Amino acid sequence: MTISLQPVRGTRDFYPAELRLRNWLFDIWRESSRQFGFEEYDACVLEHEELYVRKAGEEITEQLYSFEDKGGRRIALRPEMTPTLARLILQRKNALTFPLKWFTVAQCFRYERMTRGRRREHYQWNADVIGQSRLVAEVEVLSVLILSLEKMGLSPSRVQVHLNDRRILGSVLAHLGVPAEQHVGVMVVMDKRDKLAPEALERQLAEQGLGKGQIDGLNELLRMDTLEQVQGRLGKTAALQELRQLLDMLDAVGYGGYALFDITVVRGLSYYTGTVFEIRDTGVNLRAICGGGRYDSLLSALGGESIPAIGFGFGDVVILELLAELDLLPVLSSQIDYAVIPFSEAQVPQALTLSQALRKAGLRADSEFSFRKLKRALQRADEIGARKAVLLMPDELARGEVVLRDMARREERRMAMSEFLANPG
Amino acid sequence: MTISLQPVRGTRDFYPAELRLRNWLFDIWRESSRQFGFEEYDACVLEHEELYVRKAGEEITEQLYSFEDKGGRRIALRPEMTPTLARLILQRKNALTFPLKWFTVAQCFRYERMTRGRRREHYQWNADVIGQSRLVAEVEVLSVLILSLEKMGLSPSRVQVHLNDRRILGSVLAHLGVPAEQHVGVMVVMDKRDKLAPEALERQLAEQGLGKGQIDGLNELLRMDTLEQVQGRLGKTAALQELRQLLDMLDAVGYGGYALFDITVVRGLSYYTGTVFEIRDTGVNLRAICGGGRYDSLLSALGGESIPAIGFGFGDVVILELLAELDLLPVLSSQIDYAVIPFSEAQVPQALTLSQALRKAGLRADSEFSFRKLKRALQRADEIGARKAVLLMPDELARGEVVLRDMARREERRMAMSEFLANPG
Repeated sequence: MTISLQPVRGTRDFYPAELRLRNWLFDIWRESSRQFGFEEYDACVLEHEELYVRKAGEEITEQLYSFEDKGGRRIALRPEMTPTLARLILQRKNALTFPLKWFTVAQCFRYERMTRGRRREHYQWNADVIGQSRLVAEVEVLSVLILSLEKMGLSPSRVQVHLNDRRILGSVLAHLGVPAEQHVGVMVVMDKRDKLAPEALERQLAEQGLGKGQIDGLNELLRMDTLEQVQGRLGKTAALQELRQLLDMLDAVGYGGYALFDITVVRGLSYYTGTVFEIRDTGVNLRAICGGGRYDSLLSALGGESIPAIGFGFGDVVILELLAELDLLPVLSSQIDYAVIPFSEAQVPQALTLSQALRKAGLRADSEFSFRKLKRALQRADEIGARKAVLLMPDELARGEVVLRDMARREERRMAMSEFLANPG
Repeated sequence: MTISLQPVRGTRDFYPAELRLRNWLFDIWRESSRQFGFEEYDACVLEHEELYVRKAGEEITEQLYSFEDKGGRRIALRPEMTPTLARLILQRKNALTFPLKWFTVAQCFRYERMTRGRRREHYQWNADVIGQSRLVAEVEVLSVLILSLEKMGLSPSRVQVHLNDRRILGSVLAHLGVPAEQHVGVMVVMDKRDKLAPEALERQLAEQGLGKGQIDGLNELLRMDTLEQVQGRLGKTAALQELRQLLDMLDAVGYGGYALFDITVVRGLSYYTGTVFEIRDTGVNLRAICGGGRYDSLLSALGGESIPAIGFGFGDVVILELLAELDLLPVLSSQIDYAVIPFSEAQVPQALTLSQALRKAGLRADSEFSFRKLKRALQRADEIGARKAVLLMPDELARGEVVLRDMARREERRMAMSEFLANPG
């Protein structure tokens, strides 16, 4: 039998070198979250398809990776975590004390029929504050993001948080005479602005009920680039004042250099109700590294009471591409304390006992029984990132001694086996 | 719209308290692996269904959670990791340096139509040594398992490694006159011994071609409980000698008390070729906590060349049940360094600045803006596991001071805000 050795189309294998990098990224996400007091949650990658039935023509629901299980149920591989989070909270809302700060790192899926090398899965960091309507929730969520970017070696010259508010976009649409019930549909189309050809965008906006004059007006209003300009056209609104306040608060915590107002930021999810944001790189690509916003009505849409909430999704693919381009990826090895190196079958018992003693002392010890020549064995010890090597040289071993080698300094010293075992490390 | 808030049948939600426990277990698995020099790998939960097409009537392939994707491909949610590992190794076998020691913690699925509350997913720790035919591979794999059990607080009085060798079972079957080509099928049935009623077991063995006399002979031979007894009946074989040697080696590394020969251990996977083992609790249940073995022909079965390999799967469900029964589960909290507690809207800027300074110093600081009364705020600080609290009391704050509270000692002291910020922690 010969079978395909390739992973399923659009999915990735993680060999140790790739997984070390993924773990490095996930560790930054997790530790940043914990530094802000976010608690980790998780759920199964499978969800009922109905959790994603929304009618606004979002890309995320159109590209749902769904199937029928053997019992005839419609199941989806989750495309995003926010509906799952909402489900978890509604399920136990009487037992939970709000506000909650929760995070997760979760694999999410999509399925496009006409896919050409596009990924069908990625991992996504989500952090959400639930049950806090004040702007402090925005500050916490944006600050944890920026802290994580700084841990990756990024700075304001490389990445910027583009901030907007759906209510400002609502005012823009109202100003153009677009009825409120069309706003969500129009915004979902507006988010595709950079992906669609101008004619396709115009056609889709027309399908949402916008006339030629409204589309031109929209394009013109979306060229405003300060809060003051917008206020000059639309008047003073609560959303404009709050966004100004949010920018000031980010400034106060030292993150002002990362944040800017950007009226073109919409986000493609229908459930956002207030603040929306994207982190983009400042290079020519202006790729969205991360996106999020406030979704104060999602929980009520799922049949619960209304609870204010804000959060984001931060995928693993774009950020690793960006860090690679900027030469900011770390060089990672296994971080082994000791490589225990026997040179013949006769030394196996001693190698095992010695390795075992090191591990019992809480150390990391790799022992390997290919009985390579010294040079090749040391080369391997370097490859696995061993700090030190314990060489079981026949002559020394006969005298009850081991040879300890500091791999970085290339220095060796002899030590009685008993002494080493009594105090390894 | 009202939708179901329940997770998909047979799957689990992990709220923060449950996830802390899962992380505790995964951390033990991961750190034990790293202490032995195993490197982590991963792959997508989706695999081509053909990877699991084996013909021996194994439970694992009969209960495959598979479906047809939108492109008409047969896809499975992986039921186990070993075929994925084999796929990864075959894909890059010319670029890899053997022996390899790899581990993973991966979610695996099964689907039974007639399920009654049985789980459809669990997480499984796998550690494998690939490319090492010597018994040291067995010692390493069993030692990393035992180290992890000791980290959980278990000892030989609670858990035992039951060891056997498929070649010994082969000798038993040959002794009874069962042709070699029937052995795998018979062994897969033998593994169901504890799950099937005696008549059902007998019927299934008969279906595999065993006569009444052979079935009775098998039952009798499976009552032998020492290597010496088996040798007395079957003669001296390489497998018997190696198993004795393995038990001696485990003794030499200090794990002899955990290991015993058990001729009834078969394991339900068709691809095992040599050593097979199960870890069982010593209580009345004798549940299998973990199982594994040598599979020297799996890689050639998938179309590659033959590479010796050994490994195990260790699920998260049974072990957590056992630890709960034995009262060995840890009490875990979020481990926050500081709870920053403001008492009014006016203190928000200072609370944010202070929290931010703590986080920039690498500390974990939770700030929360519900403006609760002191008693309730301290209660929450205890709940989230904060070591200390920074209380922004109005009078002290007006004098430029903060109140630091040691949560465990219930001691408070005042400090100038500037001094605290200069040297937090």
